[in-house]
Amino acid sequence: MAQIDSDRVLADLRHLATFGAYKTGVHRPTFSEEDIAARRWFRGRLAEAGLEAEIDGIGNVYGRTPGGGPKVLTGSHLESQNHAGWLDGALGMVYGLEAARAIGGGVEVAAFCDEEGHFGSFIGSRSFTGLLEEEEIDRLANRYDATPLRDALARAGLAGVERRRVEPGRHRAFFEAHIEQGDTLESGELKIGVVSAIVAIWQYRIVALGEQNHAGTTSMARRRDAGLAITRLLGEIDRRFPGLAGPRTVWTTGRITLEPGAPSIIPGRAECLFQFRDADPAVLDRLDGELRRLVAEAGRGRCEMTLDVMGQSRPAKMDERLQEVLATAAERRAPGRWLVMPSGAGHDAQYLARVMPAAMMFVPSIGGISHHWTENTSDEDIVLGAQVYCDAVEAVLKG
Amino acid sequence: MAQIDSDRVLADLRHLATFGAYKTGVHRPTFSEEDIAARRWFRGRLAEAGLEAEIDGIGNVYGRTPGGGPKVLTGSHLESQNHAGWLDGALGMVYGLEAARAIGGGVEVAAFCDEEGHFGSFIGSRSFTGLLEEEEIDRLANRYDATPLRDALARAGLAGVERRRVEPGRHRAFFEAHIEQGDTLESGELKIGVVSAIVAIWQYRIVALGEQNHAGTTSMARRRDAGLAITRLLGEIDRRFPGLAGPRTVWTTGRITLEPGAPSIIPGRAECLFQFRDADPAVLDRLDGELRRLVAEAGRGRCEMTLDVMGQSRPAKMDERLQEVLATAAERRAPGRWLVMPSGAGHDAQYLARVMPAAMMFVPSIGGISHHWTENTSDEDIVLGAQVYCDAVEAVLKG
Repeated sequence: MAQIDSDRVLADLRHLATFGAYKTGVHRPTFSEEDIAARRWFRGRLAEAGLEAEIDGIGNVYGRTPGGGPKVLTGSHLESQNHAGWLDGALGMVYGLEAARAIGGGVEVAAFCDEEGHFGSFIGSRSFTGLLEEEEIDRLANRYDATPLRDALARAGLAGVERRRVEPGRHRAFFEAHIEQGDTLESGELKIGVVSAIVAIWQYRIVALGEQNHAGTTSMARRRDAGLAITRLLGEIDRRFPGLAGPRTVWTTGRITLEPGAPSIIPGRAECLFQFRDADPAVLDRLDGELRRLVAEAGRGRCEMTLDVMGQSRPAKMDERLQEVLATAAERRAPGRWLVMPSGAGHDAQYLARVMPAAMMFVPSIGGISHHWTENTSDEDIVLGAQVYCDAVEAVLKG
Repeated sequence: MAQIDSDRVLADLRHLATFGAYKTGVHRPTFSEEDIAARRWFRGRLAEAGLEAEIDGIGNVYGRTPGGGPKVLTGSHLESQNHAGWLDGALGMVYGLEAARAIGGGVEVAAFCDEEGHFGSFIGSRSFTGLLEEEEIDRLANRYDATPLRDALARAGLAGVERRRVEPGRHRAFFEAHIEQGDTLESGELKIGVVSAIVAIWQYRIVALGEQNHAGTTSMARRRDAGLAITRLLGEIDRRFPGLAGPRTVWTTGRITLEPGAPSIIPGRAECLFQFRDADPAVLDRLDGELRRLVAEAGRGRCEMTLDVMGQSRPAKMDERLQEVLATAAERRAPGRWLVMPSGAGHDAQYLARVMPAAMMFVPSIGGISHHWTENTSDEDIVLGAQVYCDAVEAVLKG
């Protein structure tokens, strides 16, 4: 079996972390100078490993093996969230690179652009799997500084460059490694997570419309307080959801906005962003139904209430045979210290799973911290994960 | 008895509404170009009326009568809330101007700057009553665009200009007329409100500190969701306050902020602005105690909770003899169609009441609407109010 080079894995990860270094993490937004430099550096590493490497018209770095024979695709993403961790995305990229180096021919590597969503939603993996139209590229812009995606692509030298699509039948499987971003592995003293499915995210915008008025002169009896209507609705969700959710369901109110937002004005409009996640379609449907019921009930009060669906993704099942391959590799290298678990976060693998058998593997996150510059994983866990990953890729390639 | 000139009152109000006209209302923030122009125009009207008129070092427009004899001070404010009504403040200014014109000598007029709080809290009336230090002026800035108050004063040509203070014993009384901003008068088909007291406003900032984390990978059991902590606290307030409040108490959450405010991030910090108002110190104390109890109870949960007092004003009693004078004038001009009532909104009169007998009079607001450009009062009610006001001022001046 192929043996990984631990020092090389760690050295590559540490070098990648110099692009946009921020405290002990990185700030490497999609198509920032640091991100473009990281893509070019990574393309160079792929070429050194003997792959035909290019950066395509959406910014995906794609390294293909020249010969024929069975092929496995590996990869993740290179850009980071703002002021975030050094391993989120990078880990999966270096694992793929190392598998290509350790195993040799047949291991291909792709860095899917903008998984972190600075411009859109999974534009790299959607482009690769044929789910991104030119019109959407025309429309997208950076969510922080409004730079059009087309301008960012041009600045990266990618205007007019062809976008690479997956070739049907080319790959036996897709493997993505990632940090867990939660503390399930750490708290169980486990080393490897074999992902069963990537949860669906159902995201809503709830708006209450009342009547903006003076907070001193408008009696309680006469008010149509949109903020109060939203607060009461969120209270009902808080009371009802635990009884309807599955064991791993999560739900989150990420934002509440009261308008105009002044201390002495009764809010005339209130909005909240609310989401839930689960891998079970029956749970998703049940929570969606309850949410609609609660919003309708609230809307029979003093304020109008509307519910907009911003997104309802599908749960993405990981391939069962590939889960077994990963489990076998994990059991060999870390006996009894691995777990089959869903991914609560979205990943490029959810799009790759639509076009080929896909698998995901987690390594522990220290303290479960993610999307923060303090995100980390021990060197020992990084190295162990790389070997398990390499074993699994090799098993599929040579199996 | 002096007779007001109805057409002149309405024409002046309509002219004032041209400074910063916005739809059927006005947008005339303190020290905007439009506001400075309105102050200069109003100073000219005072001068025309025979007053010695100036704009002082805090932006107050102050018109004094040249001779000796008894004097009554009248006034309100000239600036508006953002995109708000044409009569809020302006009505009281034109009533004072008209009283000076109709009655002649002895009626003085002051427009207290920034009652609407674009820069601070009642800086004009506090300056006039000796409650505003230079250090506070150094520190204040526009709450929307952060322009320092000193810069705004300089742009208005007021840097280094002396601030006028009330001369002890100069005035027999202060009269402020204002739109009601609620619907008590309208719904009772009444024409005049005689204000008994201006309620106190107790304003708080409540902060919850939890742990920012990934909304997909952090289990419900492990979360320390600051937004949820604030939502639950507001739910408790909503359940507890009705049983403890007085008949006219009002309480309002004007703003809720979740940080970082992204759909897929569990808020690590949440903040809300919460206030209540009442004219009864016992009610204020009771609600303050309950709020502290609820915040302390919430703070024993998963998030730290802190309560900051941003302001705890005192209820301001209006002078009883002046209330009788206003009631007599109201009964003469609108028999049986007036009411003694508290003011739920703060007004400059609450500061003037600290240094001289003070009175406030309300006219009806159509639909109770206020702090919105649709705010309005019928011409008939404006004119009737002006006459009642003038009668009362004259009665005090000549009584």
